[in-house]
Amino acid sequence: MAIEIERKFLVIGDAWKQGAGEFISQGYLSRDPCRTVRVRVKGAEAWLTIKGQSVGASRAEFEYAIPLADAEQLLTLCEGPLVEKIRRIVPHAGMDWEVDEFLGDNAGLVVAEIELESAEQHFEPPPWLGQEVTEDVRYFNSQLAMWPFVTW
Amino acid sequence: MAIEIERKFLVIGDAWKQGAGEFISQGYLSRDPCRTVRVRVKGAEAWLTIKGQSVGASRAEFEYAIPLADAEQLLTLCEGPLVEKIRRIVPHAGMDWEVDEFLGDNAGLVVAEIELESAEQHFEPPPWLGQEVTEDVRYFNSQLAMWPFVTW
Repeated sequence: MAIEIERKFLVIGDAWKQGAGEFISQGYLSRDPCRTVRVRVKGAEAWLTIKGQSVGASRAEFEYAIPLADAEQLLTLCEGPLVEKIRRIVPHAGMDWEVDEFLGDNAGLVVAEIELESAEQHFEPPPWLGQEVTEDVRYFNSQLAMWPFVTW
Repeated sequence: MAIEIERKFLVIGDAWKQGAGEFISQGYLSRDPCRTVRVRVKGAEAWLTIKGQSVGASRAEFEYAIPLADAEQLLTLCEGPLVEKIRRIVPHAGMDWEVDEFLGDNAGLVVAEIELESAEQHFEPPPWLGQEVTEDVRYFNSQLAMWPFVTW
């Protein structure tokens, strides 16, 4: 188990949009915020990830690599539509930001996440960083599956 | 992925009760019958198991061994009380029956399961075999977590 400490922000403009990024398709076997179970496929790799309840920016996380063929079957078991997005790693001031450009019913939504050592860790905000949404449940990917951005 | 074909029966008397058996503790990250996610600890071993919807005696099953320490943490994330039972493997007429003697709020319940190659496969019923409950959802372990035998 790891404790994931992550802050999440909206993104402004398109200066972050460099490189092709990687296509991610993911679905949820449980969208319960106390015990989320995610199936993720990125290229030829796949993972099963369980996350506990968020406490501020922190959350217990358990991640297991699984065979791609299993993941493709598991995605068909998931509740609700899949969440599809293009992820780019955007370096800024010595830190790597994960910028997710959502597709499908979540098109138009772009969020940036940074993984921290502690919730209080200082970081330099890139010029394209917008409002923080770390604790806004609507932006949880598990919620975007059932209540996509297009419906907001 | 495997397709699990299993028939489940109640058990009569105690002629099946041979040997010490193995203690199993399990909980559910999802009890949704379309996408059950189970955490199981048996001795020093642990697994994460996903099962799809049952169609008669058949069900898609995905099982991954995980570290015991992870499983112990994951059990604390599970919804509802854990299901605890003693499992014995009881051979009869060339086949192995799994006989589960439930504990805690499910004490008094004993069920026997047999894994088959096909739903129609013939087997010789042991003398202690009672009523079939394969398709009775109440006997799903995922349901016994929330609606234990003591409440029936």
